Amino acid sequence: MGLIVQKFGGTSVGSIERIEAVAERVCRTQADGHQVAVVLSAMGGETDRLLDLAHQIQPDPAPRELDMLLATGEQVSIALLCMALRRRGRQARSYTGAQAGIRTDAAHNRARIQTIDPAALRADLQAGRIAVVAGFQGADAASNITTLGRGGSDTSAVALAAALEADECQIYTDVDGVYTTDPRVCESAARLEQITFEEMLEMASQGARVLQIRAVEFAGKYRVPLRVLSSFTEGPGTLISLEKPNMEKPIVSGVAFNRDEAKISILQVPEKPGVAARILGAVAEANIEVDVIIQNTAHGASNDLSFTVHRNDVPRTLTALESIKAEVGFAAIEADDKIAKVSLVGVGMRSHAGVASKMFGTLAEEGINIQMISTSEIKIAVIIDERYLELAVRSIHSAFGLDAQGIDNAVQEQENERI
Amino acid sequence: MGLIVQKFGGTSVGSIERIEAVAERVCRTQADGHQVAVVLSAMGGETDRLLDLAHQIQPDPAPRELDMLLATGEQVSIALLCMALRRRGRQARSYTGAQAGIRTDAAHNRARIQTIDPAALRADLQAGRIAVVAGFQGADAASNITTLGRGGSDTSAVALAAALEADECQIYTDVDGVYTTDPRVCESAARLEQITFEEMLEMASQGARVLQIRAVEFAGKYRVPLRVLSSFTEGPGTLISLEKPNMEKPIVSGVAFNRDEAKISILQVPEKPGVAARILGAVAEANIEVDVIIQNTAHGASNDLSFTVHRNDVPRTLTALESIKAEVGFAAIEADDKIAKVSLVGVGMRSHAGVASKMFGTLAEEGINIQMISTSEIKIAVIIDERYLELAVRSIHSAFGLDAQGIDNAVQEQENERI
Repeated sequence: MGLIVQKFGGTSVGSIERIEAVAERVCRTQADGHQVAVVLSAMGGETDRLLDLAHQIQPDPAPRELDMLLATGEQVSIALLCMALRRRGRQARSYTGAQAGIRTDAAHNRARIQTIDPAALRADLQAGRIAVVAGFQGADAASNITTLGRGGSDTSAVALAAALEADECQIYTDVDGVYTTDPRVCESAARLEQITFEEMLEMASQGARVLQIRAVEFAGKYRVPLRVLSSFTEGPGTLISLEKPNMEKPIVSGVAFNRDEAKISILQVPEKPGVAARILGAVAEANIEVDVIIQNTAHGASNDLSFTVHRNDVPRTLTALESIKAEVGFAAIEADDKIAKVSLVGVGMRSHAGVASKMFGTLAEEGINIQMISTSEIKIAVIIDERYLELAVRSIHSAFGLDAQGIDNAVQEQENERI
Repeated sequence: MGLIVQKFGGTSVGSIERIEAVAERVCRTQADGHQVAVVLSAMGGETDRLLDLAHQIQPDPAPRELDMLLATGEQVSIALLCMALRRRGRQARSYTGAQAGIRTDAAHNRARIQTIDPAALRADLQAGRIAVVAGFQGADAASNITTLGRGGSDTSAVALAAALEADECQIYTDVDGVYTTDPRVCESAARLEQITFEEMLEMASQGARVLQIRAVEFAGKYRVPLRVLSSFTEGPGTLISLEKPNMEKPIVSGVAFNRDEAKISILQVPEKPGVAARILGAVAEANIEVDVIIQNTAHGASNDLSFTVHRNDVPRTLTALESIKAEVGFAAIEADDKIAKVSLVGVGMRSHAGVASKMFGTLAEEGINIQMISTSEIKIAVIIDERYLELAVRSIHSAFGLDAQGIDNAVQEQENERI
């Protein structure tokens, strides 16, 4: 007997049939003896429909009014799910974000949760009712409706789980768990039974799109065990939790990658104090996030400085750099968006030497040149030519023993086909 | 400089183009120097779309959840109108019913407004902002979202106008005012410049569907001047207000009619005390509303009792009467749904004798038999054969001088064609 928060995303409630299926699953969880709180996204496509209405009026609608508009999407989902639960003889009550006591700051469209007063929900759960909460939304201190930004429903679910001191927060999505890497790139990718918050954060920030980073951070901070499952197929999914003594520790957990970044190289930067800070400061002032940074000493009195930014930010980055070119006195700027980033993630690498050299060796065997390297305690990321991305992922995945094996492998391939 | 509440119904906000047109009209009112609060319905068709979603799950959805669902309709409208107003450089803020301080009882789907705390709206108006409020909805004392039932947006508007002590509550709809009778039945129907609350109540309850009866009652009770206008064409509409000394008093204001009723006749009811009460009591216990009632003494020791009910209620009425037939001891029950009701309405008839005889004489000239008669201080209603409805309306309309005249008449005919 525990308290479970279950969150279902837009595709999971995308039609009346899907909502009925969610109701079945929620009922089964309650029948297993658990108290259940449910967090829902808007029905798939609904948020886009509402945005389209707004954009017919204004390309850039007033943030407060956009929140008022978009918040209706989840409100529809929660009402319909409660009807489906009641038709099954369950007691259920729906709650908007505001009604659920989710208090946020006043930053419309990207609000942050400040406090949650779960008294009403707790009373429901204790009375055997299922509480169904609109994700993605809350209200500020002046009772204005706010939204947490896209994907904010994951954050709502985790925050509610924390406030309710839930035993587990289950995120139902269209994949059946977290994989060692993207099965579309590597057929032998395997579902992970378990992964730590830290690893999941690295995986997410390196390109694995299963969960919102903010939700994982929140879960880690409040130690809410998080489970990713499929709302379309049965299965245990992947548990994301604290590192436990009895947790089996493979050296690495997964290979993440993305093609979102571009490399900016600034050639012949004069070697004097503060120059790198001046350059990166100009980029930061333009609100552009920088990821990997390296500096080569190569030309005596000058260096080359390279860093990566999101591909969409390249034009603005070039503008920002051109504006300081004369002042700083570098020779040229180059931009290359034909790059990819491959990251090896695992808490096990903390205690294992030689992970980096094995990774680099694997890439060298395949003839793949490493352009940049970035490391953290539990991650090694390399920037390579985009052409070699799939090859790099597959060879690293295999070299570190992540490939699914035997019977599991056969099952895995079936699942991959489904995805 | 006054305070105006403007209410726009579903067809008036049925598309982005219509919402833009509403924004223009609201801006013009503000530009004329008024403070403006706006009350909106859901976009035309949206409530039906939401109901259809609910009915796919349950034919009879839980009332609380249905309110949660339906309330999103108006929330979409208010957000979109605020965007359209802001694009025109106006300050505007949207409010759900709950945010606007509209407190109702807890009767979901047919809640009644208990109190309104207009402090937030008043602050907006005084700061020059346009306050845009979701009609049809409020919240109960426990912050559950409630709805007032279909057409409740008119009531929201009038109640807000009362709470804000507005100078006028303008109801924009798809007709350009209240007519002496239905222009589809009588080509010479004329728009009324002014009508009293009492008359409007009688017109509405006798079949004129321009305004919700509850809204008119509310406006009369709180003395809120109410104006019905078209959101599609320009014009002064019809002002509904208290009877004023300088108000021109025609003998009658209009001819209302409906085909909604059926006549139930109970033959040879024993003449003893309490029998009529027993019969009508049985009907009332079945929650059936009775309209016109007559009793003929014709058979010595027994009477015939006739009354009218809504046509939809005939089967239930017959069931209720059959269950007491043996006990009461009447001979037979007859039901006739080929009847119509025609009502002449006017505060002027209070001080004019001979209105009834003139009305009955007009019908007699046309060879129309009167089956039942019901009167109030400002209304005379007759039940006739349904076949003669149009003829009866036109001849009474003409006999009491209500036909539109001369140039007005020509204009009127054009408008009729438009309707």
